[in-house]
Amino acid sequence: MSLHLTILGCHSATPRVNAYPTAQYLEINNRHFLIDCGEGTQRQMRKYKVGFSKINHIFISHLHGDHFFGLVGLISTFGILNRERELHIYGPKGIKEVTILQLKVSKSWTKYPIIFHELDSKESELIFEDDKISVRTIPLDHRIYTNGFLFTEKPKPRKLHIENIQQYNEIETCDFHNIKAGKDFILSTGEVVPNEELTIDPPKPLSYAFCSDTAYKPGIVSIIKDVDLLYHEATFLKDREDLCEKTKHSTAEQAASIAYQANAKKLVIGHYSSRYNNLEDFKAEAQTIFKNVELAEAGKLYSTDDFPIEILN
Amino acid sequence: MSLHLTILGCHSATPRVNAYPTAQYLEINNRHFLIDCGEGTQRQMRKYKVGFSKINHIFISHLHGDHFFGLVGLISTFGILNRERELHIYGPKGIKEVTILQLKVSKSWTKYPIIFHELDSKESELIFEDDKISVRTIPLDHRIYTNGFLFTEKPKPRKLHIENIQQYNEIETCDFHNIKAGKDFILSTGEVVPNEELTIDPPKPLSYAFCSDTAYKPGIVSIIKDVDLLYHEATFLKDREDLCEKTKHSTAEQAASIAYQANAKKLVIGHYSSRYNNLEDFKAEAQTIFKNVELAEAGKLYSTDDFPIEILN
Repeated sequence: MSLHLTILGCHSATPRVNAYPTAQYLEINNRHFLIDCGEGTQRQMRKYKVGFSKINHIFISHLHGDHFFGLVGLISTFGILNRERELHIYGPKGIKEVTILQLKVSKSWTKYPIIFHELDSKESELIFEDDKISVRTIPLDHRIYTNGFLFTEKPKPRKLHIENIQQYNEIETCDFHNIKAGKDFILSTGEVVPNEELTIDPPKPLSYAFCSDTAYKPGIVSIIKDVDLLYHEATFLKDREDLCEKTKHSTAEQAASIAYQANAKKLVIGHYSSRYNNLEDFKAEAQTIFKNVELAEAGKLYSTDDFPIEILN
Repeated sequence: MSLHLTILGCHSATPRVNAYPTAQYLEINNRHFLIDCGEGTQRQMRKYKVGFSKINHIFISHLHGDHFFGLVGLISTFGILNRERELHIYGPKGIKEVTILQLKVSKSWTKYPIIFHELDSKESELIFEDDKISVRTIPLDHRIYTNGFLFTEKPKPRKLHIENIQQYNEIETCDFHNIKAGKDFILSTGEVVPNEELTIDPPKPLSYAFCSDTAYKPGIVSIIKDVDLLYHEATFLKDREDLCEKTKHSTAEQAASIAYQANAKKLVIGHYSSRYNNLEDFKAEAQTIFKNVELAEAGKLYSTDDFPIEILN
């Protein structure tokens, strides 16, 4: 069980010299995902040593430029790097047409398959699942159709309590599978050895929720309840809550309120408007509601090992 | 008369941490043009202090990603910056559809007008003209439809030779217009004062030719003859001329040969393949044919005042 989030870009609207738009690289349970892909994301991936070949699934929250204008360039670069493995792209309806047209006009068809998973449901839905991970949408409230994404590890089998098992000569290796699956063991005497005696709890599955961009939407709390790590946009401070209403964004306080209601373990905020010079003000505002807050910063790596923060070179 | 070229990006294929794809900012005779617009161009414009509001005309050579994937982001940013003035975009047929679709899916229509000038001629044609400048296409030979661009200052009127004029009491201020236009002056005696005695030559109009991407194409020499500054792509060294044939690019030697045949005053080369670590090899190879060569480098400013080179902060 592991969860590492690398921020590649965390500013709103337009790329600037040292302020890249939204993109994140998530490693969870040995799966690797790219989330959003603003202009310059591939440059940031190179800078922070994200292996291009690890990315097989890209999740795009919505089709505003600061969340997807870097996608077609990345797709092209994968082609130049002779990628062969298929690439899955999850995003709003329209993402396929706009991507394909750009490849068409440049006559730069990729040799690897691209599989588009176009989304249009307004309800939370399961969009990816394998033996290690599931991904659900988190329907958000923005100016255009937008989803956040909830990444959750699959529960692992229970762990064997070897010392206790060794007390019972009757239990053979071939029984371990059932015991790990949670079954009690019945001795030849008919006595039942409860599973809790033979196993210990596996590590709790970890989860990560990505919520950008959105107006304050308490309706998402039930979807992200008890999440380990929550990224929630905080475009404005509450002094400009009027702009949140107009642009369908959140304040730092609103992001913190969502984290509090969801009982998140940690909150990371980002998508700062360029009107603010001092990002610490975002943290201070959020901490009036929810203590465990970090500011998103390009190159910052958030890990679940008590969430230490590491700055990448 | 003035010509300043700022390189914003000069590498081929994919953006890397410190290697941006093609984009150039040209100031010529007080007009300001953006030429090509690879991913990250707006970031480079900010870095090198190119005023966004100065750009009213953007010229796109072809629709490979490393020459236009930054365009829609720049268009969006102009919108965010509340631009009102119309923007003219010159590029291959298809550029309008692909740009409009991206704005459509993001519901980010600009409030300022965008006028697309779609090109499909295989002959050199005049595509922009005002009282100071003209711009012609330079049809190139690449894998997809591609044009270079020749920017030429309009000739200025002849300058008055005041000292000589003062020898003739009969010449009045109202005669200056005709004299500047090159006419002789006829004295009341019937004697003709030749124009060469009354005027001096104006500064020679300057010109800049942008040629990227292209296979070696001597056919362009007649279009760019005697150009002051020539940018010509040099993707490979001649050790990989085989790749030039396959990819329709040029070697440094071929770029220099074009400069030599065109009698260019100065050659700037760029669009280097990432396979080469030492860019000085490009310069050395070109200089076997044509001495006055500079390597394109992001942030380098080329001026016509004997073409000193300045590195911007």
